[in-house]
Amino acid sequence: MAVLRIGHRLVRDDRVTTHAALVSRAFGAERIYMTGIDQSVKDTVNAVGKRWGGNFEVEIIEDWKGVARAWKKSGGKIAHLTMYGINIDDAIEKVRKEEKLLVIIGAEKVPREAYELADYNIAVGNQPHSEIAALAIFLDRVFSGKQLKKEVAGGQLRIVPSEKGKQVEKI
Amino acid sequence: MAVLRIGHRLVRDDRVTTHAALVSRAFGAERIYMTGIDQSVKDTVNAVGKRWGGNFEVEIIEDWKGVARAWKKSGGKIAHLTMYGINIDDAIEKVRKEEKLLVIIGAEKVPREAYELADYNIAVGNQPHSEIAALAIFLDRVFSGKQLKKEVAGGQLRIVPSEKGKQVEKI
Repeated sequence: MAVLRIGHRLVRDDRVTTHAALVSRAFGAERIYMTGIDQSVKDTVNAVGKRWGGNFEVEIIEDWKGVARAWKKSGGKIAHLTMYGINIDDAIEKVRKEEKLLVIIGAEKVPREAYELADYNIAVGNQPHSEIAALAIFLDRVFSGKQLKKEVAGGQLRIVPSEKGKQVEKI
Repeated sequence: MAVLRIGHRLVRDDRVTTHAALVSRAFGAERIYMTGIDQSVKDTVNAVGKRWGGNFEVEIIEDWKGVARAWKKSGGKIAHLTMYGINIDDAIEKVRKEEKLLVIIGAEKVPREAYELADYNIAVGNQPHSEIAALAIFLDRVFSGKQLKKEVAGGQLRIVPSEKGKQVEKI
């Protein structure tokens, strides 16, 4: 499972872009491809990976169509998240069966080619909201909520869930 | 159901803040209280409401503790979303039974008082990610996913879900 994020307007989008990458990581994707981002976004996400574990990768790319086409050529499928698509509840059973999935999200307006390259155009609700929320809900449904309890190996820190306050263990 | 977002650093956070408000609206909250935001964020969210319907409200506040205390005094409960809390799966059944719920999310570091005022400190996974994603997943679980198919009354536009491209109806 990988995520492809199209479009980024420098500086202004840094936090949203970082959120998109961290959600991809925390919700079970292995990699995010991003166009036009600042190296600092990649550094932030890598620092999180070092502290909290796992092998998540940020890949900065230039040609998103090339990445998407190569993905399909190697037998993968593409799900594009858009408020104009089919309701997620009506698509999720089929999508869950796919073995190799690339999820496309857009920063703002997404080029028409994304709709056409996609095997599934999926709406996480038909109301405008946030590509970060859409991505989180999509991954949560694909993994049936199990990603939230998964132990992540290789980190320096681990949280001990608590009712009040913060409890962190060094590993 | 309302959302309270604590903390905002001017301009830099505008997009993330707008996402938080739009997610609150699209996922079934009636109102979001926000501290220190720019009027333009409120205008953007109100413009979405005008086009797409519903009665969602953005309320700009100064004293978040006052809002939280008044909420509790009137019989409401508070759920604070934090990666340090109890896993959402272990809390959701109880939370779902609450009749009046205020969800607290933070922009960055959240003051200790939020943990103490909260009736529930809930982790949407114990990995760092995004308060927007956490909010979306929380509301999705509270409403058992039903908010995504709800018709929103009073808008000017409605999307007709489609497999490719965009189809929008004027109402």
